[in-house]
Amino acid sequence: MPELAFEDFTPGRVFDLGTIVIDHDEMIAFARRFDPQPFHLDERAGKESIFGQLAASGWFTSSLWMRAYVDAVLSRSTALGSPGGEEISWPAPVFAGDELHATLEILGARRSRSRPEMGLVTLGARLRRDGDVVYRATFTGMFGVRA
Amino acid sequence: MPELAFEDFTPGRVFDLGTIVIDHDEMIAFARRFDPQPFHLDERAGKESIFGQLAASGWFTSSLWMRAYVDAVLSRSTALGSPGGEEISWPAPVFAGDELHATLEILGARRSRSRPEMGLVTLGARLRRDGDVVYRATFTGMFGVRA
Repeated sequence: MPELAFEDFTPGRVFDLGTIVIDHDEMIAFARRFDPQPFHLDERAGKESIFGQLAASGWFTSSLWMRAYVDAVLSRSTALGSPGGEEISWPAPVFAGDELHATLEILGARRSRSRPEMGLVTLGARLRRDGDVVYRATFTGMFGVRA
Repeated sequence: MPELAFEDFTPGRVFDLGTIVIDHDEMIAFARRFDPQPFHLDERAGKESIFGQLAASGWFTSSLWMRAYVDAVLSRSTALGSPGGEEISWPAPVFAGDELHATLEILGARRSRSRPEMGLVTLGARLRRDGDVVYRATFTGMFGVRA
């Protein structure tokens, strides 16, 4: 049995997912493949944009949070996947070299009625730079219950 | 002036973003870097999972839709970025080899009060496989208005 099951995701619990440093080359490579807008690719276009600087694609930021979540929580849990979420927000741009602190807060939890062997957990994702939130999302996670 | 400005994103308008085919190797490479859960990496773990098959990370699916949106719409628009969205959903798993049809529906549009040179557009993202929605998101896009 993995260490973390549905019962361990109690509302209010906060998981520290560690620190992420934004790698310039990977940030550009991601944008080139998935989000090739000028302000995600080019220094000058970034400077002239609303972001004031070459900025990361929000999807890169989201994906980096996901990796931190897998490493710190999901990999030692009964995770069964996610059907989605009800909020995803990038309140401030993310730049190359940024050090971001990742957390997960458990916002809610309920046993599935149709599938009693699992529970649905409402997950609050956050990335912060010097205390300011740069990524925020609210998702549902499905987790197996203890045997 | 780019072809598409705020004024062109009229509620009800639907943009066809074309077809995406899910590449097996890229799907695995993405999961290895950003979402290394067993059911995204390993055939057998996928078969034993709730998905019944090795399944794509939802973040890969989202990122592929984004690319189709950039190519078909944003690259010829006055796009200024996005602050986020209010819904993101993966109602069915996505598999290697899937052919997905991408669309964007304009759900709403309003001129910014604080920044009259731009408008905020509510965007409905969809990916469908044989008519069934496998990815759905609702986002806000910021676009420059016509001079």
